[in-house]
Amino acid sequence: MATPHTDSTDGTPGLPDAQEAAEILARTRAAVDPELRTAVDSLPAALRRIARYHFGWEQADGSPAAGNPGKAVRPALVLTAAAALGGAPARLAAVPAAAAVELVHNFTLLHDDVMDRDTTRRHRPTAWTVFGVPDAILAGDALQAVAHRLLAEDPHPAATAAAARLASCVVELCAGQQADTALEGCAPAEVTLDEVLAMAEAKTGALLGCACAIGGLYAGGSADEVEALDAFGRESGLAFQLIDDVIGLWGDPGRTGKPAGADLAARKKTLPVVAALSSGTPAAGELAELYEAPYDKGDLERTVQAVERAGGRDWAQVQAADRMSRAMHELARAIPSPESAGGLLALAEYVTRRTS
Amino acid sequence: MATPHTDSTDGTPGLPDAQEAAEILARTRAAVDPELRTAVDSLPAALRRIARYHFGWEQADGSPAAGNPGKAVRPALVLTAAAALGGAPARLAAVPAAAAVELVHNFTLLHDDVMDRDTTRRHRPTAWTVFGVPDAILAGDALQAVAHRLLAEDPHPAATAAAARLASCVVELCAGQQADTALEGCAPAEVTLDEVLAMAEAKTGALLGCACAIGGLYAGGSADEVEALDAFGRESGLAFQLIDDVIGLWGDPGRTGKPAGADLAARKKTLPVVAALSSGTPAAGELAELYEAPYDKGDLERTVQAVERAGGRDWAQVQAADRMSRAMHELARAIPSPESAGGLLALAEYVTRRTS
Repeated sequence: MATPHTDSTDGTPGLPDAQEAAEILARTRAAVDPELRTAVDSLPAALRRIARYHFGWEQADGSPAAGNPGKAVRPALVLTAAAALGGAPARLAAVPAAAAVELVHNFTLLHDDVMDRDTTRRHRPTAWTVFGVPDAILAGDALQAVAHRLLAEDPHPAATAAAARLASCVVELCAGQQADTALEGCAPAEVTLDEVLAMAEAKTGALLGCACAIGGLYAGGSADEVEALDAFGRESGLAFQLIDDVIGLWGDPGRTGKPAGADLAARKKTLPVVAALSSGTPAAGELAELYEAPYDKGDLERTVQAVERAGGRDWAQVQAADRMSRAMHELARAIPSPESAGGLLALAEYVTRRTS
Repeated sequence: MATPHTDSTDGTPGLPDAQEAAEILARTRAAVDPELRTAVDSLPAALRRIARYHFGWEQADGSPAAGNPGKAVRPALVLTAAAALGGAPARLAAVPAAAAVELVHNFTLLHDDVMDRDTTRRHRPTAWTVFGVPDAILAGDALQAVAHRLLAEDPHPAATAAAARLASCVVELCAGQQADTALEGCAPAEVTLDEVLAMAEAKTGALLGCACAIGGLYAGGSADEVEALDAFGRESGLAFQLIDDVIGLWGDPGRTGKPAGADLAARKKTLPVVAALSSGTPAAGELAELYEAPYDKGDLERTVQAVERAGGRDWAQVQAADRMSRAMHELARAIPSPESAGGLLALAEYVTRRTS
C-alpha cells in the first residue's frame, strides 16, 4: 500500500496552478498506482493481459512498457476533494475509492473505443485492435466489476454511499455514450445545442462530479458539501469537454494522442460544431453541406474553417469560461477557504487549460 | 415491494420435484419481478427501452409484450437458499439481492449475444440485432451497474459481502466467456477436456454458485455453509451446462429457443464435442475432420452422429450425473435437514432434467 503523502492543502501557497496541478497528479499516481495495479493483477491471466496493455504497463506481447496510463485527473479529484474537506487522513482513506473511479473511467474507455471504432488511445493502438472486440468488451466488463469490488471490500463508512454513487454514475456515463452514438446517426440540422450539452454532461461531467463527490463522502462531508463538489466537478467537466472539442479541431494531435480531424471524419456533433451549425450564419450553411456529404480528407481544412467562421470556436471558449465560473461558485460553496480549495482549483484550471 | 410469500421449506412434502420447482420459479418471479422492473425503469429512457425489450416486457417499438423473461433460476436459487437456512424472513430480505443476480445474468446475456453474434434469444431477435451493437453493449454495462447499485443501496448487513461476491463472480463470468471465445479459435485437437470444464465452471457454474452463496449470506450462514452452498450451485451449474450442451445437439429447439446445430455451426468446443474428440475412437477422427472443414449444413446430422458414436453423449450424461451427486453432497453439508433442502434439490433437478 501507499505510504501517507503530504496533504495537498498544506503547502506551496502561490505556486502557479499548472505546477501545483502537475504535482497533485504525480502524487496521485504515486498513491493510486499500487492499488490500481493490485486490482488489475487480481484478474485472471487473459483479462489481466488486456487490462495491463490498456493501462500502458505492458506491450501486447506481455513485455513491460513504460507507457502512458493517462493523466489520473479523476483519482486526483477524489483525493484532492477528500483532502480539502478532511485533510491528509481523508485523502489516504480515499485511495481505494480513487482507484475504483479510475477503473470505471478505463472500463468506459475500453468500451467507447470499441463502439466508436477508435484505433488510437494514448498514442498506442486501442485494445480492441490488438486483442479483438470480444476481449476488449470483456476486459471492460471485468474492470467495472473490480471497481465495484474495491468499494464493497472497503471497510470505510463512506464506501457504501460511494458505491451507490459510482454505480449511478456508470448508468449516466452509458446514457451519455448512447446519446453520443445516437446523435451521430442524426442529420446535423436535427441536433440541438441542449441535447449536445446534456450528452457532454452525462459523458464527461458526471464522472468528474462523482469523483469530487466521493472525495467529499470520504471526508465525512455534509450532503450540501457533497452536492456542491459534484456540481463543481460537473461544471469543470463540461468546460473540459468544450476545450477537448476545441483541441480536437484546432489542437495538436501530438499532445492529445488523437489524430486531428478524427471527430470531423466521424461526423461527430461536437459542441463547437453544433454551435456553429445553429449559428444562423452563412458559414453554418456551408458547414451543414460539408457535414451531409461523405467525408473527404481534402475538405478537412475547409470544414474546420467553417466551424470557426460560424463562431463555433468562440462560442466554445466563452461557454468554457462560463462553466468554469459556475464551477468556481460551487467550489466556494463546498470549500469556502481559498487555501483549502487551492488543489481542486488548480486541477480544474489544469484540465481546462491543457493546450498551454 | 413484494408481499411475504410462503416459505418454500414449509409445505408440500412429497410434491414431485418438477412441480415443486415450477412453483418455486413462479413464486420467485412474483417476488423479484417488481424489484427488477423498478430497477430497469430507473434507467434513462434510451437504455430502459433496450433493457425492457431484452427482458421481453416490450416490443422493439415500445408496445407491451407478454414475453418470456427467462426461467429465473438464479434468483430462485438466491431466495430458496436464503429460505433453507433462514426461513421466510431471510427469503424476503434477499429479494433485492436476487434481482441483482438476475440483472448480472442478463447483462452477460446481452454482451455474450454481441460477441457470439447470436441472433435469437428466448425465441426473439437478440437486442443487438434490433438496436445495434453499441446500444446492446451500453444496456449491458448499465445493467451491471444497476445490479451493484441495488446491493450498495440495500441496508441489510449481508449486502456488502454479497456485493463483493457478486463483483468477483462477474470477473469469473468474463474469464469464462473469454476462454469460450479463445477456445473457438483453437484447432479442435488443441483443446483439452480440463480446459473446457474450467471454462464451463466459470461461465455457468460461477453465477449459480454465487446465487446460492448470496442466499446463504442473507440468512446469516456461516462461512462453511456459504462455501458449501456455492459448491452446490457450481456443481449443479456444471451439470446444467452438460445437459444444455446435450440439448444443443440432440434437443428440441422449440424448447431451448436456440436453433439446433447452432453450437456446431459456430464450431463450439462444447463438452460432448471435446469429450468425443478426445475419445481416441474412429468416430473422433471423423469428427475432427468435420470440425476442421468449413461448416456445411448438409454435414450437420453426420456431425451429431459422430459425437454420439465417439461417446460424447454418454460421457456428458455420466458427467452430469456425477456433478449432481457432488452437488447433493455439498447441499447436505450446507443444509443437513432433507426437508429444508428440498427446494434447492428440486431446482437442481429441474435445471438438469429440463429435457423431460
